[in-house]
Amino acid sequence: MKFIVIGGDAAGMSAASRAKRNMPELSVCVYEQTQDVSYSACGMPYNIADAGRQIDDLVVRKASVFREKQDIDLKLGHRVEKIDISNKAIKGKDSSGNAFSDNYDILLIATGASPIIPNLPGFDLPGIFALKSLEDGRKLKQFLRPEIKKAVILGMGYIALEMAESFHNRGISVSMIKHRPQLLPWLSSNLANRVQKELKAHDIQLYDGHPVAGIESTNNQLNVISKDLTLNADIVLTAIGVRPNSQIAKDAQIKTGPSDAILVDSKMATTGKDVFAAGDCASVMHNVSKKQTWIPLALYANRGGWTVADNVCRKNKYIPGVVGTAVFKVFGLQVARTGLNMSEAKKAGFDPVEIVIQSRSRAHAHPGAGKIDVSMVGDVSSGRLLGVQMVGEEGVAHRINAPAIALHGKMSVEEFSLADFAYAPPFSPVWDPLLTAANQLLKKM
Amino acid sequence: MKFIVIGGDAAGMSAASRAKRNMPELSVCVYEQTQDVSYSACGMPYNIADAGRQIDDLVVRKASVFREKQDIDLKLGHRVEKIDISNKAIKGKDSSGNAFSDNYDILLIATGASPIIPNLPGFDLPGIFALKSLEDGRKLKQFLRPEIKKAVILGMGYIALEMAESFHNRGISVSMIKHRPQLLPWLSSNLANRVQKELKAHDIQLYDGHPVAGIESTNNQLNVISKDLTLNADIVLTAIGVRPNSQIAKDAQIKTGPSDAILVDSKMATTGKDVFAAGDCASVMHNVSKKQTWIPLALYANRGGWTVADNVCRKNKYIPGVVGTAVFKVFGLQVARTGLNMSEAKKAGFDPVEIVIQSRSRAHAHPGAGKIDVSMVGDVSSGRLLGVQMVGEEGVAHRINAPAIALHGKMSVEEFSLADFAYAPPFSPVWDPLLTAANQLLKKM
Repeated sequence: MKFIVIGGDAAGMSAASRAKRNMPELSVCVYEQTQDVSYSACGMPYNIADAGRQIDDLVVRKASVFREKQDIDLKLGHRVEKIDISNKAIKGKDSSGNAFSDNYDILLIATGASPIIPNLPGFDLPGIFALKSLEDGRKLKQFLRPEIKKAVILGMGYIALEMAESFHNRGISVSMIKHRPQLLPWLSSNLANRVQKELKAHDIQLYDGHPVAGIESTNNQLNVISKDLTLNADIVLTAIGVRPNSQIAKDAQIKTGPSDAILVDSKMATTGKDVFAAGDCASVMHNVSKKQTWIPLALYANRGGWTVADNVCRKNKYIPGVVGTAVFKVFGLQVARTGLNMSEAKKAGFDPVEIVIQSRSRAHAHPGAGKIDVSMVGDVSSGRLLGVQMVGEEGVAHRINAPAIALHGKMSVEEFSLADFAYAPPFSPVWDPLLTAANQLLKKM
Repeated sequence: MKFIVIGGDAAGMSAASRAKRNMPELSVCVYEQTQDVSYSACGMPYNIADAGRQIDDLVVRKASVFREKQDIDLKLGHRVEKIDISNKAIKGKDSSGNAFSDNYDILLIATGASPIIPNLPGFDLPGIFALKSLEDGRKLKQFLRPEIKKAVILGMGYIALEMAESFHNRGISVSMIKHRPQLLPWLSSNLANRVQKELKAHDIQLYDGHPVAGIESTNNQLNVISKDLTLNADIVLTAIGVRPNSQIAKDAQIKTGPSDAILVDSKMATTGKDVFAAGDCASVMHNVSKKQTWIPLALYANRGGWTVADNVCRKNKYIPGVVGTAVFKVFGLQVARTGLNMSEAKKAGFDPVEIVIQSRSRAHAHPGAGKIDVSMVGDVSSGRLLGVQMVGEEGVAHRINAPAIALHGKMSVEEFSLADFAYAPPFSPVWDPLLTAANQLLKKM
């Protein structure tokens, strides 16, 4: 039996490796269009921040290991361009332009996502970067010579914010610009304001509500042009979001869903016979809204890959979906979320109510405490916990996993408020900030 | 209606305050035998570690606030000695030796717990301390003059360990001695070994398996005497555990349970008519073993107090019990647990299996990562998650709350392994250490 994987990053290589471990006699072939496999893409902003580190430190496992130790037929520089479902075949071109084709018994599409580049003048000029593949990171890092002093970042999402910190740490001044008003509009406003203050405290200039019209190059400088504003830069980073690489699936009549991501069921199967999809190109089921959605995150890619491998090997593995847990760091702050915010909850048909509280990261009178802001959303009609957001200097990143588990378990706000949290003075108040939020939210429900 | 509370610490004052907030017309009277109310007892080791801080920094709310702002009749220096359930009366003596008596409609026993002092020669010598009340902490801290250079701690539980660090930070060399062999016998052995190494790295001398026979005083020094060993000290701390102050309840024919703690139901009611109990003197229901047990922890005391207040005010509040979540810090390590360990699980009638793994606190190639050791226990017959223990330099204290929620929700190990955890390189690997442990445990189940 032959298992072909298109795409050699998190989902693709997780699937290939696990399928081989599950069933050593399986023939596994991976087609990857770049020269890189199995690297920690999320680590790039931190790697770029440190001039002394090699970008290739982020490689988790080398191609040779997959080939020699795991007997995976890994073809780098091979771009698959067409899937023929009726003939169970794929076609493509390698990096020298030679055509290739192959036949599968089972296929996995793990083509990932690509950065959105605005279709506006000047975005092809030198000095303008995006950051998704390791090769993107390699090129960007090489470009950061000592004379690079000013960066403009398009977008204010979490990759944009991580890169703002990264540039700042390299001594580069940073301006950020985006089309829509409001920083982190998905974040409860008190919490978003705190992130904004943190950015301003590190001299990051924020220009939200400024649509970019194009980029020009004059006197060896890039000018990012908006209606009422021109920002000069030595380097420009486009980080306004990504879109799933699903065209190849659509061309093969495979159904796509939200954000044009490839629709998959709880076994990661697409609507195409014997074709699976996983990773940033695939949809996920949201366990709170009970709707298919698209949230490209590393854990889903890895877990999705494993799930495909188990189903390829007839293990009948189902996964229950996600609750949208995420965290990022921006300078001294940790920002985390799980579940739905107010507007998402309304959209999903709930009758939501929100509480926003501020508490401390350590016990009364324990030195070194920081403030933790918590937003918690519950459903008035059912009493269910729907979502939590947190911002703080410490104790946020791992705390968010507790309400995430509660969301998986469809726990009510009251049940959550009565849960047994760990307490010691260096780590939390007796009433953990999450318990305080739940206690306060109950009063509004 | 008159609500009388015996004991003015966490459970007692939580109950008194909340009852007054719930029902301002309620007459609330608290009898407290010491001169202190409402302080962070758990903060004492950290306060004592810092010569520059006043022990009274740990007071959360002063007696005057309870009296003046909350209209609570707070009687300090009043020791209740007898409860007469048939006449709904209490009797006692104040600090000047004058008898007093009072009548209640509803009574709360919140008498806490007392340190166990061995009934052996020499434990009444000067320089020997225990640490439970704020007055204990006050006296101990006053005693720590610059000439105090050597401490012996009896016991190796978490208060003993916190105080070892506290003394160490004050420049006092520390030896610890206990009767039974093995440091932290409830902790999985790999994890306990790691704690032991941390203690040794800070020059803490450990003498486990050495029963103490008594203490003698010679040449202005204390000698802690064991069969084959004598330890010299300028100060001795007895930290071999606490026992519930339940004698007053037993004398009134109120039923006690495990460890002689006062038995309470899910409304915190005792077997005595109109008598509640809460805090370190009361039992708790363990939600995993489904057995009454005794775990004296601050959150249970605060929550128990609130529950009593709500039931006093006819709000019919039930609490679901605990899962035994706890954390402490010892030098550079965080040590946390929730649920049952192997031997507790066997005793509770499960068919448990354990996995012990080591993972990292940050992503692949992210600098500054520490190691996290995880023990996870599951039930082979039902598939249920039963307990988790963790030790690590960072990311342990709050991570433990996720499996705690899973235990409340009776989640299976497989469901837990498929949960949506937060990931960003500074905070965890893509597969959180808890997910790695669950994935590995599944293979053994």
